[in-house]
Amino acid sequence: MRFDTSLLAIDWGTTNRRIYRIEQGAVTQTERDDRGVTAMAQTGYAEEIAAIRARFGDLPVLMAGMVGSTIGWQVAPYVPAPAGLDEIAQGLAWIDARTAIVPGVSLVDGRRADVMRGEEVQLLGACAAGMAPGDALLAQPGTHCKWVEMRGGRIADFVTAMTGELFAMLRKQSILAPQLGAPVADGPAFREGVEDGKRADLAASLFGVRAAKLMGVRDDADAAAYVSGLLIGADVAARLAQSDHAEVQLLADPVLGSLYAIAIEANGRAARLVDSHAAFLAGIVQLGKLIA
Amino acid sequence: MRFDTSLLAIDWGTTNRRIYRIEQGAVTQTERDDRGVTAMAQTGYAEEIAAIRARFGDLPVLMAGMVGSTIGWQVAPYVPAPAGLDEIAQGLAWIDARTAIVPGVSLVDGRRADVMRGEEVQLLGACAAGMAPGDALLAQPGTHCKWVEMRGGRIADFVTAMTGELFAMLRKQSILAPQLGAPVADGPAFREGVEDGKRADLAASLFGVRAAKLMGVRDDADAAAYVSGLLIGADVAARLAQSDHAEVQLLADPVLGSLYAIAIEANGRAARLVDSHAAFLAGIVQLGKLIA
Repeated sequence: MRFDTSLLAIDWGTTNRRIYRIEQGAVTQTERDDRGVTAMAQTGYAEEIAAIRARFGDLPVLMAGMVGSTIGWQVAPYVPAPAGLDEIAQGLAWIDARTAIVPGVSLVDGRRADVMRGEEVQLLGACAAGMAPGDALLAQPGTHCKWVEMRGGRIADFVTAMTGELFAMLRKQSILAPQLGAPVADGPAFREGVEDGKRADLAASLFGVRAAKLMGVRDDADAAAYVSGLLIGADVAARLAQSDHAEVQLLADPVLGSLYAIAIEANGRAARLVDSHAAFLAGIVQLGKLIA
Repeated sequence: MRFDTSLLAIDWGTTNRRIYRIEQGAVTQTERDDRGVTAMAQTGYAEEIAAIRARFGDLPVLMAGMVGSTIGWQVAPYVPAPAGLDEIAQGLAWIDARTAIVPGVSLVDGRRADVMRGEEVQLLGACAAGMAPGDALLAQPGTHCKWVEMRGGRIADFVTAMTGELFAMLRKQSILAPQLGAPVADGPAFREGVEDGKRADLAASLFGVRAAKLMGVRDDADAAAYVSGLLIGADVAARLAQSDHAEVQLLADPVLGSLYAIAIEANGRAARLVDSHAAFLAGIVQLGKLIA
């Protein structure tokens, strides 16, 4: 038994987990559940892996994500950027000869620091499989949106923006919370937010949402879409000001991905959606081959 | 009995309240408590005012702040900017012939709206009493920081930034919360935050606080000061980019005022602290004279 194009891959995040059985490079079984690392006991992982092998087959196991963090099973120390599949393979944290955890990637540039853990597999997989160019700007929208400069198929530089987390906080506990209950969708309010986001003046634009309600300028039904547009627009504008790529490769679910695509186009660039699950699988299979 | 330079003034906010007895323009008794409008029953105000007159003297009463909002006693509709003491006096909401609520000020400039309620008394008082120039940029730092362009002693234009609220939210519920427990004080970390705030890229700078910890770039003891500097610095930089006043007049308590002063100076302008309590009293006394 050795690593190869047949293995079990686990995308093991904070709150969710997805298990894939991959045989000859193709997924033959998959399962998604809520047994993320916060639902696990630190001492329960070996037993859990045995149970997974019993269900999915007695194959080598590659895990990625928060399972390799301080709140996971075993710390897989960050590999410094620039990093490609080779450096990631060399940085694997081995539990035993057929069970390993993929390391995250870190960046320190003067006083600026950044980290990723889990996203690296998608990024490197997308480039390795030709789903995205090897020299490109990739974005992974979400709670903590990653913007990654790939060069020669390697992670060269990146920035994380806590765009999704700010939106969730505003919706949950700010003075604006009672106005932000409506679902977010594209439309005039979202696009007005994207335009205002270019001004990069969040603290003032956000208070304007309350004043717009009090003065009858904007309906509350539109407030959530406007604020989402504002935050995504500010994120996109800040990143594109630092990049001259004509196109952004979006690793995202279709809903959030299409909102980012609208904001990217409103800032004069093109956006292309890349299947993030397929990219993850491509990355894990490449890693399996490298350590075969 | 008529309004004059002798009256009871109540600065009646959301959570706190301050009562002043003013005789011949001077404070002869004052009291501060936590009976803000959220602690009051909507039907209890008349009785409360009777009790205040019993304690402080049977004088005319002028109230300012959230007592005139939809969550207060009676709505005192916003007076549109530009607005001076005359317009505010004309906009008073009268409960009876010797009891009135000061209106807030609103602004609608195309799709941009803003409001203030309570701050107008300080602003107009500071200029009327010569504590600040009549043509000046005034700032009132706090949960919702007001930046006000005064022209000829009148409120000409203003912007509100929810700078203090964003800081409180981040400290209470964000992924950064465990790092932000230390008190905020001036020092290298605060000033580094002010510099980074000039980049106006909050969502990314904030995630950098977490990464800086993980990569050992910044100690957690400094994280709260850095984030405060970041938010105040972004607020100050955005506002000064829209203004060419060489000096900002700060209506603030000394602690928060001095942090804003540092950020203003780091952006190449001068800052001057103005006593906000004295400004409130000057404004209320001027209003009392106008309706005498």
